[in-house]
Amino acid sequence: MHYTLGELAQRFGLELVGDASALIGGVCTLSPGHEGQIGFLANPRYRSTLGQTRASAVIVGRKDATALSGNGLVARDPYYAFAQVARLFDASKDFAPGIHPTAVVAVDAQIGEGVHVGPLAVIEGGAIVGAHSHVGPACFIGAGATLGAACRLEARVHLNAGVTLGERVQIQPGAVIGSRGFGNVMGPKGWEEVPQLGSVVIGNDVEIGANTTIDRGAIDDTVIGNGVRLDNLIMIAHNCRIGDHTAIAAMTGIAGSTRVGSRCMIGGAVGINGHIEIGDDVIILGRAMVTQSLPDKGVYGSGLPIAPAKDWRKTVARVRRLGKLEDRVRAVEQHVGIKGLEDNDDATDDAV
Amino acid sequence: MHYTLGELAQRFGLELVGDASALIGGVCTLSPGHEGQIGFLANPRYRSTLGQTRASAVIVGRKDATALSGNGLVARDPYYAFAQVARLFDASKDFAPGIHPTAVVAVDAQIGEGVHVGPLAVIEGGAIVGAHSHVGPACFIGAGATLGAACRLEARVHLNAGVTLGERVQIQPGAVIGSRGFGNVMGPKGWEEVPQLGSVVIGNDVEIGANTTIDRGAIDDTVIGNGVRLDNLIMIAHNCRIGDHTAIAAMTGIAGSTRVGSRCMIGGAVGINGHIEIGDDVIILGRAMVTQSLPDKGVYGSGLPIAPAKDWRKTVARVRRLGKLEDRVRAVEQHVGIKGLEDNDDATDDAV
Amino acid sequence: MHYTLGELAQRFGLELVGDASALIGGVCTLSPGHEGQIGFLANPRYRSTLGQTRASAVIVGRKDATALSGNGLVARDPYYAFAQVARLFDASKDFAPGIHPTAVVAVDAQIGEGVHVGPLAVIEGGAIVGAHSHVGPACFIGAGATLGAACRLEARVHLNAGVTLGERVQIQPGAVIGSRGFGNVMGPKGWEEVPQLGSVVIGNDVEIGANTTIDRGAIDDTVIGNGVRLDNLIMIAHNCRIGDHTAIAAMTGIAGSTRVGSRCMIGGAVGINGHIEIGDDVIILGRAMVTQSLPDKGVYGSGLPIAPAKDWRKTVARVRRLGKLEDRVRAVEQHVGIKGLEDNDDATDDAV
Repeated sequence: MHYTLGELAQRFGLELVGDASALIGGVCTLSPGHEGQIGFLANPRYRSTLGQTRASAVIVGRKDATALSGNGLVARDPYYAFAQVARLFDASKDFAPGIHPTAVVAVDAQIGEGVHVGPLAVIEGGAIVGAHSHVGPACFIGAGATLGAACRLEARVHLNAGVTLGERVQIQPGAVIGSRGFGNVMGPKGWEEVPQLGSVVIGNDVEIGANTTIDRGAIDDTVIGNGVRLDNLIMIAHNCRIGDHTAIAAMTGIAGSTRVGSRCMIGGAVGINGHIEIGDDVIILGRAMVTQSLPDKGVYGSGLPIAPAKDWRKTVARVRRLGKLEDRVRAVEQHVGIKGLEDNDDATDDAV
Repeated sequence: MHYTLGELAQRFGLELVGDASALIGGVCTLSPGHEGQIGFLANPRYRSTLGQTRASAVIVGRKDATALSGNGLVARDPYYAFAQVARLFDASKDFAPGIHPTAVVAVDAQIGEGVHVGPLAVIEGGAIVGAHSHVGPACFIGAGATLGAACRLEARVHLNAGVTLGERVQIQPGAVIGSRGFGNVMGPKGWEEVPQLGSVVIGNDVEIGANTTIDRGAIDDTVIGNGVRLDNLIMIAHNCRIGDHTAIAAMTGIAGSTRVGSRCMIGGAVGINGHIEIGDDVIILGRAMVTQSLPDKGVYGSGLPIAPAKDWRKTVARVRRLGKLEDRVRAVEQHVGIKGLEDNDDATDDAV
Repeated sequence: MHYTLGELAQRFGLELVGDASALIGGVCTLSPGHEGQIGFLANPRYRSTLGQTRASAVIVGRKDATALSGNGLVARDPYYAFAQVARLFDASKDFAPGIHPTAVVAVDAQIGEGVHVGPLAVIEGGAIVGAHSHVGPACFIGAGATLGAACRLEARVHLNAGVTLGERVQIQPGAVIGSRGFGNVMGPKGWEEVPQLGSVVIGNDVEIGANTTIDRGAIDDTVIGNGVRLDNLIMIAHNCRIGDHTAIAAMTGIAGSTRVGSRCMIGGAVGINGHIEIGDDVIILGRAMVTQSLPDKGVYGSGLPIAPAKDWRKTVARVRRLGKLEDRVRAVEQHVGIKGLEDNDDATDDAV
């Protein structure tokens, strides 16, 4: 499939620079770029590649428009415009409706119009699959689970009985939605199970990554808001609530009953304690250790970054003798007769 | 299904307060609570909700019995009593025996009495499935693997050939038991595989979470004791041994050949080094970095908790110049003529 | 299957000590060891077990040859020699060619000679499976994906459409190769998807662990070099490139567009930032937080190791008042009239 540069400009309301009849058949990176394809420039670091790219056109922001030496499209947000253009060339989600003969679909499951059910998928009794949804190979939809319209379960997705998805929810392979919450109580002979009677409710336009797990609630539901983006290998424990349009990068874990606000951006491999609250618009940098509530909007981080191992070992030793260093400073202060600030040596920190 | 409050009191040996004929049809949270259902109060923080709940009865501890304004059950451990009551209303594990026609079961597999084998499960030759076990959809039981009685593989669980489960083991979707241990040796042309000839042996009453992986041993077996609780996305490497009744929260990883004692409680996203020993009754707080053996019972933690990013960056810079700060303190000590404590600046820390 | 010790010595070019006719039927650990089996000694810590083992022979290095009290094989690298011997007793990869009747294989998929396709595997149109490959139960091979010769997909492996594997690639259960990269752009109504049009290209002799995920590239491909070893539950984000013979332990995550050199060794649960470069031969210790490029060969680490919780809490408090401690030292310096080193209190650290 090909589009002229003029067609693309018109379709997405972008400003055309150069040859309107240039044919675009795909997208490419700027360096080296491919003839017949279109690239984009969003990061000023790569500005110098503009002159050398083999791409037949480049999408740029307004401040880079004058740097264009060939054909281009000028956009307010070049990355957003690129995403729109790229979608024209993405056939990966096309599918033909129909139920594969090897799928195991309960007679009382409700399958909407235009739905695709792939090979070896299992859909149990009372489940509802909204119109134009795609249920990929080997997916499992438990009894009474509900999918809104135009959902896409890529492949081998597990939806436990009773789980509810809104519309246009996309889930990558291996994700498990509605596994048993980790509720245990010590009984006379060892751990006993606390039944997990809640479910998982997922809003509209949510994306969930590969091998991510979301546990069902203990009594009430675990809730994922509209427009949430979850990357791969994330753990959302029982009873959590994630606010609308929050994005979470891979390998982050959120312990039970924590609430995360709307429009948060949480980096990868962050660990968030249970029973706390993260406010709206909070940004948490990757690998942070979140032990306490963060009610206020802002950017947060933690952790000691990488160093050569011999420096790291010295740093660890120095941190361990910080108490002694404080003692030495106090001794010097007393010796010279100045009053030091209080160092609260015995105070523990409630937050950790 | 409904029970009178009097029936519940009698069944579980609890003290009845109020109307013995009150009908209970489920469990609820205290706030707001639901009529016809029973809640519980274990955390004193929520004591004030007792007066406002719509729940028809509340399970409380002895010290909260006088605060009950309506119907209730008084228990020594209200959370444990709640778990018992909640189990009456949990139908999620009911199943009908039988082998689904799409399951692929080897003729020489031994399937016990009352077993359920779900659609598209695969059970290979020589495998033994104990009586009254539930093998959910798309589970895989490798050649010669053994399940004790009353196990429950929820769905899409992978048991490698030769893996052994005790009785009443429950495994959530996506877990992989018996994957190849990460044994590699550098040969003349690159990494070569060290065969992993051991297996995984799992005791009775173990629970394993979604997408958790347990590698098989290199020569001997990886061993999970009785009553162990493993949450989601955990990694147990080859040759590890986990003692009875130890509970481990999500995303914790244990490197090869480490031994963990009995009755330990290990938080989420903890990283535990290989070839070390954790004693009995050790408690490790979430996100800790365990580089060395912890033979002694106790509570352990590590890590720098979250801070506003600008404070965090300053902290990182200060930690990095700790060596200079020690030099400055030493210079002051020499200048004023007092003998500081030895600061061992060049000592490295053997533990890391 | 049994071998005489003499046969083993000849086959692998090892020096024989003792009875050439001793029959070896398997491998064992040294302690306690098993009669009729062979163990190995690589770690000097276990040297004392040589005299007590019940093993019928032991593979040792040259410096331990004189400590042998019974039969043995002397090798330059005893662990490597052990791996070679152990492979003789590893039947776990034997398979019979053929396509299981329950597999769903597209008519236009190309299945090479001697290939095994297990029950309930799905192979889509245009896929190519190289000769003598093993496609285990419930694996999915998407449209146009390509496997070189002698690959082994253990079970339930997901290869997205278009993914390319070299020869002798081994993948453990639950791994997902080619899931959608986490590319999102904020649009007027919330996050919108940036199409991920690249794929994943994997070299020869690669091993990938259980439940690991490798996302496909946004425009170009995510690339895994020859001989790479990836353990379980690893995340490789879109556009990453991992150099030849690099080994990465479990639970490590690498964010998007990062390049890792050749022959690196990266420990478990390491977090690596996006858009950075790790050079060749870099060793990163477990749990490290890699925020910046590491161009130079060397050993790197980070993190504060475990301590008793009460000490840990004091350490956290002390680190938090490091700024005050610097102020106190500066005050003392001024008081006694010596010029301290500059402490750059307001400097932030660019690296984090």
